[in-house]
Amino acid sequence: MKIMHLGDLHIGKTINQQNLLEEQSILLNRLVQDIREASIDVLVIAGDIYDRSIPSREAMKVFETFIYEVNQVQKIPVLLISGNHDSAERLGYGKAWYKGHEMHIGTTIDDALNPVSIDGVDFYLVPYVEPVVARHYFEDDSIRTHHDTYKRIIEQIEQRIDKGRINILVSHLFVTGGMTTESEREIIVGTIENVSLKLFDAFDYVMLGHLHTPDAIRDEKVFYSGSIMKYSFDEVHQRKGYRIFDLKKQQVSFITLSPPRDLEYATGTFGDAIKMKLAVDRNSYLKLELSDMEHINDPMFKLKQVYPYLLELKPMINNRDIHYKQREVQQLSHLELVKQFYLDMTDSEMDETQTLLIEQLINESRLMDETD
Amino acid sequence: MKIMHLGDLHIGKTINQQNLLEEQSILLNRLVQDIREASIDVLVIAGDIYDRSIPSREAMKVFETFIYEVNQVQKIPVLLISGNHDSAERLGYGKAWYKGHEMHIGTTIDDALNPVSIDGVDFYLVPYVEPVVARHYFEDDSIRTHHDTYKRIIEQIEQRIDKGRINILVSHLFVTGGMTTESEREIIVGTIENVSLKLFDAFDYVMLGHLHTPDAIRDEKVFYSGSIMKYSFDEVHQRKGYRIFDLKKQQVSFITLSPPRDLEYATGTFGDAIKMKLAVDRNSYLKLELSDMEHINDPMFKLKQVYPYLLELKPMINNRDIHYKQREVQQLSHLELVKQFYLDMTDSEMDETQTLLIEQLINESRLMDETD
Repeated sequence: MKIMHLGDLHIGKTINQQNLLEEQSILLNRLVQDIREASIDVLVIAGDIYDRSIPSREAMKVFETFIYEVNQVQKIPVLLISGNHDSAERLGYGKAWYKGHEMHIGTTIDDALNPVSIDGVDFYLVPYVEPVVARHYFEDDSIRTHHDTYKRIIEQIEQRIDKGRINILVSHLFVTGGMTTESEREIIVGTIENVSLKLFDAFDYVMLGHLHTPDAIRDEKVFYSGSIMKYSFDEVHQRKGYRIFDLKKQQVSFITLSPPRDLEYATGTFGDAIKMKLAVDRNSYLKLELSDMEHINDPMFKLKQVYPYLLELKPMINNRDIHYKQREVQQLSHLELVKQFYLDMTDSEMDETQTLLIEQLINESRLMDETD
Repeated sequence: MKIMHLGDLHIGKTINQQNLLEEQSILLNRLVQDIREASIDVLVIAGDIYDRSIPSREAMKVFETFIYEVNQVQKIPVLLISGNHDSAERLGYGKAWYKGHEMHIGTTIDDALNPVSIDGVDFYLVPYVEPVVARHYFEDDSIRTHHDTYKRIIEQIEQRIDKGRINILVSHLFVTGGMTTESEREIIVGTIENVSLKLFDAFDYVMLGHLHTPDAIRDEKVFYSGSIMKYSFDEVHQRKGYRIFDLKKQQVSFITLSPPRDLEYATGTFGDAIKMKLAVDRNSYLKLELSDMEHINDPMFKLKQVYPYLLELKPMINNRDIHYKQREVQQLSHLELVKQFYLDMTDSEMDETQTLLIEQLINESRLMDETD
């Protein structure tokens, strides 16, 4: 069996108002071809189908066209789960009907516990699940974190798993040690959402979505496919594409996808930029971070004449104020550090109320450290 | 063959912020039972499934549960079309998959031209179509009205229709002579949207949606089912339910549906209302139009103690200003009429610019009349 493992399509994604739907549509057409040419038997999509819980009609059309070609024309089973960007309810609408065509949509804990069996392989489709949902489902208030959530679901799976078969977990989560980027980080900031690799012992393979780089973790059986294209400017150096699992040969390979228009980031002086001396393709989607723009009127307008797909322009700060020496920083108190940071970011001093608040927070966090 | 004909479900509809989803869910459960008990062979839903183009997840769940019971559990073919309240694209998402389960969703002109054949009966599913869409589809700028639109579609159908079979048209439109109510009138005001009965000669039966009363027209083969429940206060005296077409017996019957909570309207004095002397059920959804409220503080609050589901309260206007004698009105010029209307509605006079604009519009419309 040959399985194509995709993740994080984020159909309908925009970067600074630039809709990427056309690029996405072209990439998905390429995938339809690849599926045919590589004789893929099963397509797995590990969550974040859409970028928003209510996708646009155009985004829905692009995805529908893709799965129509794969599932209805090529008659290939499609297994997909909802990610944190998807609305589980909307993505799962009609799943009873899709199931009859070997298109399986996992959006609930119930779905997760009942494997989809294809030619001797059991696929467990575990969607993105919020801890509050698991707490309610299992009637267990001790479930607080994403780790607790997936641990509980996987324990349930382990009780019914058939060790005589090949067992594959498909999920959408953040494995400890994985590296995040801007476009993944939109979910809950500040809570523990990591899941430990140890959870996956019962499975032969684990196909993950959520992190956008296929290199987020190195493991023999646990893999991210990464997103199909670059979705933020801190992903510019990541490779993008999909994985193929050849179960017979026990091989996992990564295939690179190149979108019609790349996403690039460069720094330099405004003068060099306007003279096209930056090491970027003029026709890429671009973020430029440039110095010496202080006295330029409407630099964005001027640069767009040269770089028509310039999406973001940031002045480069070339100063003494921010790049402190490490030793200096170490000598500052917590409060002084916050004050200095506030000054650098806002160009004004913290007022008395703010100072008091920060002092209070620092004290509280000290107390917490001590009681740990 | 026994066909249940429903229309205008408007799932998720709210009246003055009161969501009717619970009532709708109960009615649809009742329909599931009726379908079983009456040995229905085919379910037809003639448009306006949802009340909004982007239905809530809860509304989608209610509809999904209904069609799941009918189509997946009872294995009964379901034919449905999009109405003017539905998003054709959203409702049509996944229709290739549903089709394989004998659930047919007509949302485009292409769908309209290709009949669904079930046991010797051909169903033509003609969704609500905007003239601009037909103009584009047929590349014909002469299509301006709804009548033009449906005429053109039906002409195309007539070219391919098989007279040896029973031919049924399912559509969502406004037949000339039909009576409208508030909740239907949300579409295009002021353009001609009526469709003539003559269009339907080629069909044995026509099952319509759009008008909310089953009594909107009297015809031997053209029927509205009406909406499943009352959706505005000018529908309070309409009967609500669905139709059953028994093709073998050539009988069409109407079955009444009673929701758990009725919608009623009454007039009277505030004093009578508060003493429960109005001829309404206290537990109905209510609109009251009451006199003698001028000196009552927060009458809505007081009345809600008695009528917990009071949705709308209107002061009854008993005055000389607005009810002109017909003769007086006939003597006023167009401009004077508009001025008087403006004064009545806003309590202030039209200013000079407004007066000039209205004069100009009146002149333009006179010119148009003359060139007609």
